[in-house]
Amino acid sequence: MSTDALRTRAAALDERHQATDLRERFALPDGVVYLDGNSLGALPRAVVGAVSDAVEVQWGRDLITSWNTHGWWDTPRRVGDRLGRLVGAAAGQVVVGDSTSVRLHQALHAAAALRSDRRVVLADPATFPTDLYVLDGVARQVGWIVEHVTPDEAPARLAGSQDVAAVVYSHVDYRTGRLWDLPTVTRAAHDAGALAVWDLCHSAGAVPIGLDEHRVDLAMGCGYKYLNGGPGAPAFLYVAAEHHDGFANIVPGWHGHAEPFAMSGGYRPAAGIDRARIGTPPMLSMIALEAALSAFDGVDIAAVRERSLSLTAFLRECIDVLVPGTAYASPDDESRGSQVAVRHPDAYGVVQALIARGVVGDFRTPDIVRLGVAAPYLTHADMLTAADHLAHVLAADEHLDPAFTTRNAVT
Amino acid sequence: MSTDALRTRAAALDERHQATDLRERFALPDGVVYLDGNSLGALPRAVVGAVSDAVEVQWGRDLITSWNTHGWWDTPRRVGDRLGRLVGAAAGQVVVGDSTSVRLHQALHAAAALRSDRRVVLADPATFPTDLYVLDGVARQVGWIVEHVTPDEAPARLAGSQDVAAVVYSHVDYRTGRLWDLPTVTRAAHDAGALAVWDLCHSAGAVPIGLDEHRVDLAMGCGYKYLNGGPGAPAFLYVAAEHHDGFANIVPGWHGHAEPFAMSGGYRPAAGIDRARIGTPPMLSMIALEAALSAFDGVDIAAVRERSLSLTAFLRECIDVLVPGTAYASPDDESRGSQVAVRHPDAYGVVQALIARGVVGDFRTPDIVRLGVAAPYLTHADMLTAADHLAHVLAADEHLDPAFTTRNAVT
Repeated sequence: MSTDALRTRAAALDERHQATDLRERFALPDGVVYLDGNSLGALPRAVVGAVSDAVEVQWGRDLITSWNTHGWWDTPRRVGDRLGRLVGAAAGQVVVGDSTSVRLHQALHAAAALRSDRRVVLADPATFPTDLYVLDGVARQVGWIVEHVTPDEAPARLAGSQDVAAVVYSHVDYRTGRLWDLPTVTRAAHDAGALAVWDLCHSAGAVPIGLDEHRVDLAMGCGYKYLNGGPGAPAFLYVAAEHHDGFANIVPGWHGHAEPFAMSGGYRPAAGIDRARIGTPPMLSMIALEAALSAFDGVDIAAVRERSLSLTAFLRECIDVLVPGTAYASPDDESRGSQVAVRHPDAYGVVQALIARGVVGDFRTPDIVRLGVAAPYLTHADMLTAADHLAHVLAADEHLDPAFTTRNAVT
Repeated sequence: MSTDALRTRAAALDERHQATDLRERFALPDGVVYLDGNSLGALPRAVVGAVSDAVEVQWGRDLITSWNTHGWWDTPRRVGDRLGRLVGAAAGQVVVGDSTSVRLHQALHAAAALRSDRRVVLADPATFPTDLYVLDGVARQVGWIVEHVTPDEAPARLAGSQDVAAVVYSHVDYRTGRLWDLPTVTRAAHDAGALAVWDLCHSAGAVPIGLDEHRVDLAMGCGYKYLNGGPGAPAFLYVAAEHHDGFANIVPGWHGHAEPFAMSGGYRPAAGIDRARIGTPPMLSMIALEAALSAFDGVDIAAVRERSLSLTAFLRECIDVLVPGTAYASPDDESRGSQVAVRHPDAYGVVQALIARGVVGDFRTPDIVRLGVAAPYLTHADMLTAADHLAHVLAADEHLDPAFTTRNAVT
């Protein structure tokens, strides 16, 4: 197939998927194909006015009264409910605030308290490192033994066992983009009396998750990837309603107290998900995230996923045509998340050379060119553009240019 | 003394203290005397442009590259160094991010690890409740016994003892405004081989603290009171350089890793204060705090304190003249922080009636009208205005109006 034929096909696909083209809801720079929305989502236009109002009107003019009049106090739960719709959680089970690491620390300690008679935790050795670091920390604190078992090996490990307290898995692998089978693993955990704890960083806002439907116990994720909440946007924590009464908050700050303004000396947890609150949340970032979620208004995550599958399939098709023989780390069936991960020995240089051409992806060690596909603001035409630039980079050896091979910190 | 005489005196005092009048650096609504800067500091004008740039240029246009090009990655330490100047900490010992509760959780666990052979911790039963909640949580986790001892009783308790791991005190009491003797208590702790951990929420930005000078071990505080960092602004943690090597991070997220982008499976702490980082910080709120700190540029905290002492003395003088017989919870000597705390049986109604008149203070249970005096943006004329309104509220029994006695959540 020629580039012209691909262009015709891109136009046809974009027309077919026009109903889920939400590009107008985002402010993106001209001339950029942004394939790093799985690291930092693009700016939803609604955020600009919301943050400026938060700074100038709510903080600047209304000052302390905004905790009531502008609903600041209720933000963690209100934004949680709004986010809950996108991850399949009924109201009252998601709270927003703090970082993913802190939320994971909380979730793991809560799991340990709920299964205090068990000692083993299963985790994927290939998961995002912070999950392993925080898990190892909690394991030392509560006496857990961490067993490295991949999600697809978990059901066999769990079958007939009685020693596993919890499984702690990422829904989508941050490097390969592999979408793990959350329903099957969760069911296997439950059959063995274990809890299922899921990290949704790379699936929230991109993939239907169905937390309630699949009876996930605890889950957390960040707000700054496919949810587009802005740099370092607050994270979220899901605690299934059935666990609220048994939820022990490892950092019992006053926002989770039953009567925070009674200022009493003893901690008494609030009812429901509010007991998972910790301290005062970073309101400007909370308000940015809340506004960002409005970019999903009127759209179902199933439709976003359908668009994403079409985009990632087409991106791979374009690369296969324009860069024959490309190797991939991402699956090509529906067990992929919303990214295409290309393997290349000079992956770092490839990513830098692509950025110089306006195609922004990122590098993941050791050999992955990670192309995140945030469906709401990307088109099939963008996929072709990205593949075309990749072909040019490789044909001209731009990725070997020393200007592109000097390493900087990137996230 | 008549109101006219007080007015003349206010003008003279304002002229005398003109060099520390930073009102122009803040955006405050007309007709308001804002005495709640110890709950939420006013908006520094520099924040408006900084946040709008962070949203529209750094996030919206430069996207993921801003982690390098706009220095996002270094923000926790860079803002920490800037804040360090205000609390008497040399560079490289303060990190910014997360909430005060999380920072306290971290500091207490670090203290437990540094004094693992000791079991007792001293804490003030009247401190801000979250400190007690979080401390009780850590105590359960590490096997500490919490003894309730006020800061002024601490030296006697510590003398000759060998069982105390740490003292955990607020520098300024959030209700009474009492400024505790940090140097003496810290020295007493050290003489007994204990660590001194200080909560600086109500002193940072208002009172000279001298963390290095007095050899404080660990300290934390919020960014949203006298530091004016905005609602829920990120907190800060100080770890004295001598403790860096022994600092164990209870939430070892990847931002505190020696090589965060190596994405290795095992946690290896960064050198120095960076090892106290946890996860991705809320960048919009971090940038707001950084810009807010510029309101202190060119001003020494000693000068801010001098102005504050003059303002609070004059506020009390005005109240004594206009509302004779007023009872206070705050000290009238230099052992006061930057607030005047009036006791009144109907304190809640008094606060609400004052707010209706444009004098914004806050209520603290059970009987305190808390009038916070953020010196940079308040004048002696403001103090007279506040006292005058207080006199009118009480004379007309406005504080008994049912409109003002119905309780709302306030912070």
